[in-house]
Amino acid sequence: MTATIHPLRPRGPSAPGGAAAVPSLNPVLTLVGPGLGAVNQVILDRMVSPVALIPELAGHLIAGGGKRLRPMLTLACAQLLDYAGTRHHKLAASVEFIHTATLLHDDVVDGSDLRRGKSTANTIWGNPASVLVGDFLFSRAFELMVEDGSLRVLKILSHASAVIAEGEVAQLTAQRNVETSEDRYLEIITAKTAVLFAAACQIAAVVAERPAACEASLESYGRNLGIAFQLVDDAIDYVSDADTMGKDAGDDFRDGKVTLPVILAYARGNDAEREFWRAAMLGRAAGPDELERAKALLQSSGAIDDTLARAQHYAARAIDALAGFPNSAARAALTETAEFAVSRAY
Amino acid sequence: MTATIHPLRPRGPSAPGGAAAVPSLNPVLTLVGPGLGAVNQVILDRMVSPVALIPELAGHLIAGGGKRLRPMLTLACAQLLDYAGTRHHKLAASVEFIHTATLLHDDVVDGSDLRRGKSTANTIWGNPASVLVGDFLFSRAFELMVEDGSLRVLKILSHASAVIAEGEVAQLTAQRNVETSEDRYLEIITAKTAVLFAAACQIAAVVAERPAACEASLESYGRNLGIAFQLVDDAIDYVSDADTMGKDAGDDFRDGKVTLPVILAYARGNDAEREFWRAAMLGRAAGPDELERAKALLQSSGAIDDTLARAQHYAARAIDALAGFPNSAARAALTETAEFAVSRAY
Repeated sequence: MTATIHPLRPRGPSAPGGAAAVPSLNPVLTLVGPGLGAVNQVILDRMVSPVALIPELAGHLIAGGGKRLRPMLTLACAQLLDYAGTRHHKLAASVEFIHTATLLHDDVVDGSDLRRGKSTANTIWGNPASVLVGDFLFSRAFELMVEDGSLRVLKILSHASAVIAEGEVAQLTAQRNVETSEDRYLEIITAKTAVLFAAACQIAAVVAERPAACEASLESYGRNLGIAFQLVDDAIDYVSDADTMGKDAGDDFRDGKVTLPVILAYARGNDAEREFWRAAMLGRAAGPDELERAKALLQSSGAIDDTLARAQHYAARAIDALAGFPNSAARAALTETAEFAVSRAY
Repeated sequence: MTATIHPLRPRGPSAPGGAAAVPSLNPVLTLVGPGLGAVNQVILDRMVSPVALIPELAGHLIAGGGKRLRPMLTLACAQLLDYAGTRHHKLAASVEFIHTATLLHDDVVDGSDLRRGKSTANTIWGNPASVLVGDFLFSRAFELMVEDGSLRVLKILSHASAVIAEGEVAQLTAQRNVETSEDRYLEIITAKTAVLFAAACQIAAVVAERPAACEASLESYGRNLGIAFQLVDDAIDYVSDADTMGKDAGDDFRDGKVTLPVILAYARGNDAEREFWRAAMLGRAAGPDELERAKALLQSSGAIDDTLARAQHYAARAIDALAGFPNSAARAALTETAEFAVSRAY
C-alpha cells in the first residue's frame, strides 16, 4: 500500500524547510529488515505442499504485496524487549498465516474481486479453493505454534482466532444495518482486526519471558494500533481510488458494509439522507452516482474528518501504551508506525 | 444414520434361529454412554457465543443427528486402556468441533443441499455464515486443546487438521477426473476422513500416558476404520435413498465426485461406458436417468461389491490392530464397530 497525501484537512505545523514531515513505515522496516527476511523464509518453507494449488493460491496472496504488518509488529516488539533469540520468527509466520487465512475467507464471504489492486484468489481459483486453502493455512499456523511449544502463545492465538471468527459472524449479522451504533462497530473491528494486531505484539513479550504487565502494554499498543488502522481504512475507502491506494475504493459502499463514516453520516443526516443511506447499504441504490453522493455527504457531515479524529485518538493511546519502555530505536519505530497509521489518509 | 439391510450379496452364515447377526453400534453406545453425555455437555457449553447465529448454526449440525462417531472412538479407546480420568471429554469435544467445521466447509465447497436428510447450514444461512462459523468452531477446538495443555495432543490434531485441508484441496483438483487411480483415491480419503478417525483414537493413548506403540495401534485402528467407513459411504451413495439412509443418494454422482465405485467401473468399462462416466462426472449428463444407468453399471461391473470388499479389508485390518490388547468389553465394542462399518451397506 502506498502512502498518499489527501488534503482533507491541515496537517499541523510544517517541518523546518516548509515540507510537512510525513510519518512512514521506513523506521520499522529498517529495524526489522533482517528478521523479516527470516520470517519470510519460514512462510515460504511452510506453505509448501505436494498439492500444488496450495502454494500457488497462498503465494498469490502472501507474496502479493502485503505489508507483513503483523510479523513486523512481532519483530519490532521483540526488539523493544531486547529479545535476542529466534523463536518469534516461526510465531510471526504463524500470525501471518492466520491473517492470510482470514483474508481468503473474507474475500469469499464478501464476494470481493480486488484486494490491493490485484484480483482476489476466489476470483482466480474459485470460492471452494479459497475456503480450503484458508483452512490449510490456519492449521499450518497451529502446527508452527505447536513446534514452538509455548502453551501461553497457543492460548493467545487460539483465543484471537476464535474472537476474529466471532467478530466476522457478528459483522455478517450487522451487515447493511445503518443503525449499528459506534460502540457496536468498535466491538466488531476490535474482534475482526485489532485482536490479531494485539496478539502479534503480545507474543513478543511471551518469548522474551517478560511479566504480565509487559504483555498487557504490548497488547494495548497492538489493539489500539489495529483500531486506528481499520478506521483509517474505512475512511480511505471513500476518499481514494484503486490506482493510488491499491485498494478498490467504494468496495465497502458496494458491499453494503456499514463502517464508522457511514454510521456517523447516517446519525447526523436528515430524513432524506438517512433514506439514501438505508437504500445504499441494502444495495438498492449503490451505483457510481450514489457513490459520489455518498462521498459528498461524508465530507459535508464531517464524518470522514471525525472518523480520522477517532483513529488519531486510538493511535495516541497506542503510543502512550509504550510510555513505560525506555527510549530506543524500536520504541521510536513503533511510535512512528502508529503515526503512519493515521497520516496515510491525509 | 440408520443401518439398513440391502440384499446386495449373501451375508454369510445365519445366526441360530435363522436371523442374520447384524453388527451394530449398540455395544459401543452402551460402553461410552455416560462419557458421551459429558462430551455433549462440553460441546453445548463451548459452542455458546454472544453472537446468536453461532450456536444456532452450529447447533443445527451438531445437534442434528450426527452419530458422534469420533468422540465415541476417543471414549471407547480410553476405556480400552482403563483410563479413569476425564481429560478426554474436552478433547473428544475438540475432535467433534474440528469434524463439524470441516462438514460446514465441505457443504459450502460442494454446494450440497442435504446432509443426513436435513437441509444443510449453507442452504439455510448462506455460504458466508457457514464459512465463518466453521472458522469459529475450528478455533474453539484449539482453545479446548490448549486448556487441556498437552502439546502431544495439539501436535496430533493440528497435523490432522492440516492434512484434512490438504486432502480437501487435492480432491478439488482431482474432481471430475475419472482417471483418478485407486491409490490416489485412497490417499485422498485417508487425508479427508481417516486421519481424524485415527487422531480421535490416538489421543486416548496420549491422555492415558501409554507408550508410542500403543498410540500407533490405536492410530492404525482409527485410520483403517475411517477408510472402511468412507468406502462404504461411497457405495451407499449408489444403493440407497434419502428416506432410508438419511443421506441424499446420488449426491456424489450429481456433484461429479469420483469415488472408488466410479473408478472401478470406469477402469473396467468399454469405450461407450467410459464416455458415459466422463460425461457424467463433468456434469454434462448427470440427471435421474443417468443415475439409474450408473447404478446398473456399478452393479453389473461388480464395482459396488468390490468397493465393499475393499472396505471389508480395511475393517479387518482395524480389528487386527487391536490384537495386542487384552479381551474386554471395550475391545469387543471397537471390533463390532468395525464390523458395523461394513455391514450397514448390506
